[in-house]
Amino acid sequence: MQIRQATQDDFEQIWPIFQEIVQAGETYSYDRDITKEQAAARWLDKPRRTYVVLENDTILGSYYIKPNHDGPGSHVCNCGYMVSADARGRGLATAMCEHSQKMAVELAYKAMQFNFVASSNEGAVKLWSKLGFDVVGRLPKAFEHPTLGYVDALVMYKWLQLEQ
Amino acid sequence: MQIRQATQDDFEQIWPIFQEIVQAGETYSYDRDITKEQAAARWLDKPRRTYVVLENDTILGSYYIKPNHDGPGSHVCNCGYMVSADARGRGLATAMCEHSQKMAVELAYKAMQFNFVASSNEGAVKLWSKLGFDVVGRLPKAFEHPTLGYVDALVMYKWLQLEQ
Repeated sequence: MQIRQATQDDFEQIWPIFQEIVQAGETYSYDRDITKEQAAARWLDKPRRTYVVLENDTILGSYYIKPNHDGPGSHVCNCGYMVSADARGRGLATAMCEHSQKMAVELAYKAMQFNFVASSNEGAVKLWSKLGFDVVGRLPKAFEHPTLGYVDALVMYKWLQLEQ
Repeated sequence: MQIRQATQDDFEQIWPIFQEIVQAGETYSYDRDITKEQAAARWLDKPRRTYVVLENDTILGSYYIKPNHDGPGSHVCNCGYMVSADARGRGLATAMCEHSQKMAVELAYKAMQFNFVASSNEGAVKLWSKLGFDVVGRLPKAFEHPTLGYVDALVMYKWLQLEQ
């Protein structure tokens, strides 16, 4: 398995992964009917960097890293991770999150924030906690889950620098 | 005093208010060197609606309303408010926030969220609390204040519907 920066051509393989996850509506706050072009703009073009995880020439997952805010908030980054349905349970989310934390430090970010983790997504909450993120906020009924209805969304945060 | 929807022409008067606030760097997470065109795109074009507060023909303040997230998060709106330095202490922020809450309900939003309130901005924290917002998150050292250094940023949230 290899992690490298994504190219424009990679979106051909990222798009089916993206579309499956967004259409499920259980984890990401994108419109379910987002177009391929809009998705590429959001995932590939707008972020500071986007990476893919490959096995041979097949993309199994992808993540982006970008500043969570501009100006006085630009030292905190935000990342999003997606793993192909076929490749789940193989530690890809952990590998990508650890890689992104290293990249964040290289890019001189001081902290990483996840803005909108559905509280129903227990696997993600547990994984991010294990990887050092704290739940620093709880947004009441902020996530509309397709079967559970309104559930709380969590804000998770990790300070990345050892020296403060 | 009158509150009405903003036109493109209004940005001539909004821009000096915007610029003064953003250059101070104490409250908003915009780049300090944001251009007038970028500011108009962010404040006027991207949001769902933008309003201005006028006295005679002079704009004293402005706010925007937009969904805070897409898809499963689109029932929660986000607003930003700016008041001209000359017009502070006259209740404009309160008037705009109350107006925005009514507009939010009309536009079928269920809740309103402020993502990034500098904890050092005690006036704002006190005002939003008085207007029914709860502090639902605290982001450690997420706001780089020009004189105080890294201060916490708060996430504030209000459920708008009486019937849940």
